[in-house]
Amino acid sequence: MLGACLDRVRQQAPLVHNITNYVTANDVANLLLSCGARPVMADDPREAAEIAGHAAAVHLNLGTFSASRYEAMLAAGTAAGQLGRPIVLDPVGVGASRLRREAALTLLGTLPITAVRGNLSELRALAEDLTTAGGVDAEGDMPPLEETVFHLKAAARSLGTILIATGAEDLVTDGDRCFVIRNGRAEMGRITGTGCQLSGLTAAFLGANPETPLEAAAAAVCAIGLAGELGWQRMGPSDGSMAYRNYLIDAVYHLSGEGLEKGAKYEVQ
Amino acid sequence: MLGACLDRVRQQAPLVHNITNYVTANDVANLLLSCGARPVMADDPREAAEIAGHAAAVHLNLGTFSASRYEAMLAAGTAAGQLGRPIVLDPVGVGASRLRREAALTLLGTLPITAVRGNLSELRALAEDLTTAGGVDAEGDMPPLEETVFHLKAAARSLGTILIATGAEDLVTDGDRCFVIRNGRAEMGRITGTGCQLSGLTAAFLGANPETPLEAAAAAVCAIGLAGELGWQRMGPSDGSMAYRNYLIDAVYHLSGEGLEKGAKYEVQ
Amino acid sequence: MLGACLDRVRQQAPLVHNITNYVTANDVANLLLSCGARPVMADDPREAAEIAGHAAAVHLNLGTFSASRYEAMLAAGTAAGQLGRPIVLDPVGVGASRLRREAALTLLGTLPITAVRGNLSELRALAEDLTTAGGVDAEGDMPPLEETVFHLKAAARSLGTILIATGAEDLVTDGDRCFVIRNGRAEMGRITGTGCQLSGLTAAFLGANPETPLEAAAAAVCAIGLAGELGWQRMGPSDGSMAYRNYLIDAVYHLSGEGLEKGAKYEVQ
Repeated sequence: MLGACLDRVRQQAPLVHNITNYVTANDVANLLLSCGARPVMADDPREAAEIAGHAAAVHLNLGTFSASRYEAMLAAGTAAGQLGRPIVLDPVGVGASRLRREAALTLLGTLPITAVRGNLSELRALAEDLTTAGGVDAEGDMPPLEETVFHLKAAARSLGTILIATGAEDLVTDGDRCFVIRNGRAEMGRITGTGCQLSGLTAAFLGANPETPLEAAAAAVCAIGLAGELGWQRMGPSDGSMAYRNYLIDAVYHLSGEGLEKGAKYEVQ
Repeated sequence: MLGACLDRVRQQAPLVHNITNYVTANDVANLLLSCGARPVMADDPREAAEIAGHAAAVHLNLGTFSASRYEAMLAAGTAAGQLGRPIVLDPVGVGASRLRREAALTLLGTLPITAVRGNLSELRALAEDLTTAGGVDAEGDMPPLEETVFHLKAAARSLGTILIATGAEDLVTDGDRCFVIRNGRAEMGRITGTGCQLSGLTAAFLGANPETPLEAAAAAVCAIGLAGELGWQRMGPSDGSMAYRNYLIDAVYHLSGEGLEKGAKYEVQ
Repeated sequence: MLGACLDRVRQQAPLVHNITNYVTANDVANLLLSCGARPVMADDPREAAEIAGHAAAVHLNLGTFSASRYEAMLAAGTAAGQLGRPIVLDPVGVGASRLRREAALTLLGTLPITAVRGNLSELRALAEDLTTAGGVDAEGDMPPLEETVFHLKAAARSLGTILIATGAEDLVTDGDRCFVIRNGRAEMGRITGTGCQLSGLTAAFLGANPETPLEAAAAAVCAIGLAGELGWQRMGPSDGSMAYRNYLIDAVYHLSGEGLEKGAKYEVQ
């Protein structure tokens, strides 16, 4: 099932419009090409709607936030919404400034966002259901998994969007079902941009699988995690984070739908 | 002949001023360094003319277009034109928005552009002679080579510039002669930025060979294509697009004028 | 001593706020992650002060200069200064435009800059003591080392900051003592961004070692130079500048405090 989602990305080669930060834009573009999608980066507000109109999906990413990029997000997201195309929001660093928090909340309130991808503390900065989850008031404290799933589902229902919370386990929920995913490695956090890459990949998977968005999002999460595992197997004694970055994207390049189906580790709660 | 163009780049180490997109700027900089040129990226309109004044050539690239970057292009291009320095235009995505199309046409009408580098559909969005070529009205349809060469020459004469059309064969014409180049591999399209890298490389080759611009442009096209072939030979079974990206630039790093002379595959029509 | 500076970076994982150019931002982020620091890139003037308030150190870099990024530098630098956090300035290309020279001098005059990192010609564009050093009036002429050290110390005292001049030897002085460092390789200049990476690394080292800023800066310089040596040892016959870029950052990933202590080559004058 998840493998078929990847097969459809390779068959359809969806055009993904990314309005994203300049730190990891190159990685996102290469990752999208490696899975068979076609990336376009364009963040001038004057052309954002027109570009989004050509795209199968839109990826909005708050890294290196700017006023101009925000205007472009609203324009592209509105155009995508009118066409019924999926929109992924990555609220990078949303807990670090009021500006980003307000921008993220306005985007969520204005656009028909299909999925939000962040780590749990980023999602907490957005969703009241999560903020109060389990009485957690300090970042880093982890409530039991079932409790997190419960509150994440509630937040997904409140926000009316799929939520993708990456961490030790990755959680993907539409408010009803929740995929608990155990692919990936902690060392992926030592490379910049794996989160942004996943957000772009999620947009590609949603663009090629608009009928089954929850499965598509879960497949993207499993794919990048599995690539992180496969890439790690190639690591030699002198290899470090840059080798790992290359091996991870190269693993996506070679990943087949069948390989994803076999390597995906998840349960549905 | 083409090999000598590369030798002159390595001898002269031309400073190339790039006003380019943030997705592939790092790749362009590394590619330019690998061939012995010296890249500078500067896109503030207030300093663009001064920076261009130091440079042997200017590379204007429409990726991640913005109002500010466009102003900088006009300023840098004007300064370069007054000094008689070559200017390369890469109309990235010019078919995807009116904004980029108008910007590209204004740049072509205002600045003494030496060469335009794009794929055939991008060049079609710019040149009427190409738009109507062979009655082609759907992107992707390929008329016979001779017909394309005929119309590309006409377009180069109309625009008064060298045209570099990359594709299955790469075509480089000044309106009189046309180099038909058969270096390169289709897999280069699975890496982001090979087009931008070629545009920067073309600027470096023109900067070091201002007397023979057509040969210089053809040499740059052969060089990156040959590097794509040499890089591909290093590919192991787990290597993917990121390994290929590295191998391609590393191949330019080791490419000699003699190697280019021997590996260049072209005919002149 | 220098090794302990690196150990403290790995123990404390300092958050480093970078306001830097888009050409090398990805490399800077990966380099910082490889040494155990946590990078954040944020250059919207409206959030720069708030982000800087979370950071252990701030890195201001003039590459791809813009009005907006400059405003963000003033805001972030002011916030960091009020909190007593170290600030590193990298005056990229300051000799190439009046705009950058004026910006760099204003930043130096306004903010409590802890260290300035540039090559000698960049520092000369900033410091009168260096401009007249040894009657040198043409870029590239190298006065004897003792003379350079003498004038660099004077410039550091005039500017009230640590100066880090990278070149054949790297010099790090607070105006009193000067570390003369002989790590590194000339081939590091064939990769884009090693200078920016060092500036970011210096911020990380200063952030984790605020009590001993001169030693911290010297340790950062030795660390990247040593990584350049270790990375070079891995180079195979087909490897070029892209392989070297990866090997260099991977060497930082594996570098221990003990390894740095043993591999650092310096004397104090």
